[in-house]
Amino acid sequence: MNFSMVELIGIKRDGNELDADALAWIVDEFTADRIPEYQMSALLMAIVLNGMSRQELAPWTEAILHSGDVLDLSGVHNPRVGKHSTGGVGDKISIPLAPIVAACGVAVPKISGRGLGHTGGTLDKLESIPGFSTIVDPSAFTDQLNTIGVVIAGQSDTLVPADKRLYALRDATGTVPSVPLISSSIMSKKLAENLDGLLLDVKFGSGAFMKTIEEADTLANTMVGIGESHGIRVTALLTNMSQPLGRAVGNANEIAESVAVLRGDGPADVTELTERFAVEMLLLSGVEDSEAASEQVRHAIDSGAAIDTLKRLVESQGGDVAVIDNTDLLPSAKNEHVVTAESHGFIDTCDAMAVGLAAVRLGAGRATRDDIIDHSVGFLIEAKVGDAVSVGNPLVRIAYNDEARLRSALDALQDAWTITEEPPSPRSLVAGRVP
Amino acid sequence: MNFSMVELIGIKRDGNELDADALAWIVDEFTADRIPEYQMSALLMAIVLNGMSRQELAPWTEAILHSGDVLDLSGVHNPRVGKHSTGGVGDKISIPLAPIVAACGVAVPKISGRGLGHTGGTLDKLESIPGFSTIVDPSAFTDQLNTIGVVIAGQSDTLVPADKRLYALRDATGTVPSVPLISSSIMSKKLAENLDGLLLDVKFGSGAFMKTIEEADTLANTMVGIGESHGIRVTALLTNMSQPLGRAVGNANEIAESVAVLRGDGPADVTELTERFAVEMLLLSGVEDSEAASEQVRHAIDSGAAIDTLKRLVESQGGDVAVIDNTDLLPSAKNEHVVTAESHGFIDTCDAMAVGLAAVRLGAGRATRDDIIDHSVGFLIEAKVGDAVSVGNPLVRIAYNDEARLRSALDALQDAWTITEEPPSPRSLVAGRVP
Repeated sequence: MNFSMVELIGIKRDGNELDADALAWIVDEFTADRIPEYQMSALLMAIVLNGMSRQELAPWTEAILHSGDVLDLSGVHNPRVGKHSTGGVGDKISIPLAPIVAACGVAVPKISGRGLGHTGGTLDKLESIPGFSTIVDPSAFTDQLNTIGVVIAGQSDTLVPADKRLYALRDATGTVPSVPLISSSIMSKKLAENLDGLLLDVKFGSGAFMKTIEEADTLANTMVGIGESHGIRVTALLTNMSQPLGRAVGNANEIAESVAVLRGDGPADVTELTERFAVEMLLLSGVEDSEAASEQVRHAIDSGAAIDTLKRLVESQGGDVAVIDNTDLLPSAKNEHVVTAESHGFIDTCDAMAVGLAAVRLGAGRATRDDIIDHSVGFLIEAKVGDAVSVGNPLVRIAYNDEARLRSALDALQDAWTITEEPPSPRSLVAGRVP
Repeated sequence: MNFSMVELIGIKRDGNELDADALAWIVDEFTADRIPEYQMSALLMAIVLNGMSRQELAPWTEAILHSGDVLDLSGVHNPRVGKHSTGGVGDKISIPLAPIVAACGVAVPKISGRGLGHTGGTLDKLESIPGFSTIVDPSAFTDQLNTIGVVIAGQSDTLVPADKRLYALRDATGTVPSVPLISSSIMSKKLAENLDGLLLDVKFGSGAFMKTIEEADTLANTMVGIGESHGIRVTALLTNMSQPLGRAVGNANEIAESVAVLRGDGPADVTELTERFAVEMLLLSGVEDSEAASEQVRHAIDSGAAIDTLKRLVESQGGDVAVIDNTDLLPSAKNEHVVTAESHGFIDTCDAMAVGLAAVRLGAGRATRDDIIDHSVGFLIEAKVGDAVSVGNPLVRIAYNDEARLRSALDALQDAWTITEEPPSPRSLVAGRVP
């Protein structure tokens, strides 16, 4: 099949649909360096502005997915269910979640990412555990999934190379904000995990990429549509990311908080979301109803099976299991600074974006891809939305190593907390579900 | 001034306006190879889809204009008025027009183009004259304008290099069809001619780039706006290009037809348009009213001053003047084929696009930039819209050198002529004027 790229760009520019053969050809030729970047970026901008239909997204995503290796998990005994979050602040949910679900007899092959900008990354957090390696050979996945039930690893270079190249080009050409391009990027990576089911956590609010629930809903529906076209079961939950999740925002401290969740004494919001997600993943794996799933999840935590699974995961990937038994052994910062309330009343907002950007300035995140992370620094939030505070009460404890970074972080936190006289009306953490 | 190209692309992508400094920076950096083509093509697609305001077009066009040399015509005594056509079939108007206007005491520094696709080019037509050179050193412009009043030359490499690079990129990225990009491309080149006034012939209809009068009107208004921002007087006429102009479509035969116009026996439509344009150019040069201008134009033709100016132009640019005195000396093709009417009635359409494409197939035009033109081949149209014909009457005489090319051209001409029982209602050649 041979096409003229200029003509194909023209079709999309004029608001018409590209057919499946043309879309596959574009991805294949671009990956093989036979379509120049200046043509691809023109097409990407036309897609940003004119969109892509569900009929176009299916073959486009398949072509990206098949641009490299796809995990072969045919030797895994249990049903395979994945999870993906669109990214937030304090979002460590995967770390307690995956062991719980694995302890319930579901295989969780999780390929995770690193933090960039205001959002953290699961791999960075796990690397706070001394020795923990996020590099797992694809051939070792099946074995670890059959014995422990969970793998959390980084993406190998041979997985979806087209997505890597497309993403780099989008990043450099102002073509990132596009629901179809974001959806196909996420879904090509998740479908390469060779899943039976997938749970999507689509976040909205100040700390999320989607600012409104309407945008999150559109993204969720688009991703669920791609999953259905591919023939796997996908559930998306729309969750509120206007304030950070939990108390810990950082890396080592988020591991400690994850362990607390598995011990039954994590913060209410992280515990609620972890359990809800676990239930949804069990439903995707074939468990009949929410009640049965809930019971299994409670049992996995209460029996210690879940924390045991986390330990085996850490051990299998080279990490020091002692830090799970005693999280005080995790890397810790030299100093602490406490920000206190200057008025009394109720916390109205605790701005996730401000906290996320402050975390980058503190050294817990990356402004650019090459930045080095300090795993020991971070925030412990003492006042969450709805909490009553008096003047002098702590809002946040900041663990830091460098005075200049602390001051820069404090600048970013300036207006993060607002206090009102009346308590704000409570907002639910999970605001919607697709389908 | 320093900008982030990704941010600037984002501004245009989101439908907002770029400021003058940013637009100038983009053009300058792109011309200096400091903005990669993949970023520029993403911006160009955003411009195609989101447009550009008049406020944006002025600095954008100025930056393109000043990316290279601008003609210095300060030593020219007479007012300088240019002319540009958006391109058509059989459009040789510049060739009789420029000598008439020059003979009336206006300096006409005309930088022309070559034919591509279905449209012919003034330079190709002039090169039918043995010895005629379209390369005139910019330093020689002033002298020739002061002595003869007219120069018709090709664009030197140092004039508007940014436009050349932008055009090549647009051609390869599906970003050609955009009123602001077309307007700024045309106007940057015309403004580099250092004019006091400019007449634009904006064509619409099957043989034009703009198919409808509404599109032509938008383009005309945009270009006139750019001219006003630059501080020169611009008039645009919207002219009908649904059938070819005149009888001759080719190269040498269009020179012969141009000479006929200057001798007072050219086809009615070419004569009408040439005289109308000449009047508009005289008005732009400062002549007080149309009546006075008309009189000057008639006198320039009737007195022989105009044809004399054409001869001096040809001589000055190295061409053989003998062919102007006797156009039978122009290159001629070996064979003639006549297409005749198969029914009787009135010519309803004589499709300019079909004739233009047939001319390319015959060898009179270019399908790609590197094609070589055969100046001797072409069409002599015997039946124009509104003419009465009987079965067997000639529709077109085809001068050709190659049988295969003739057959291919005949294929393209298949449905070019349609004949109806009732005469079509007459359409005026000039359908609008801006401002």
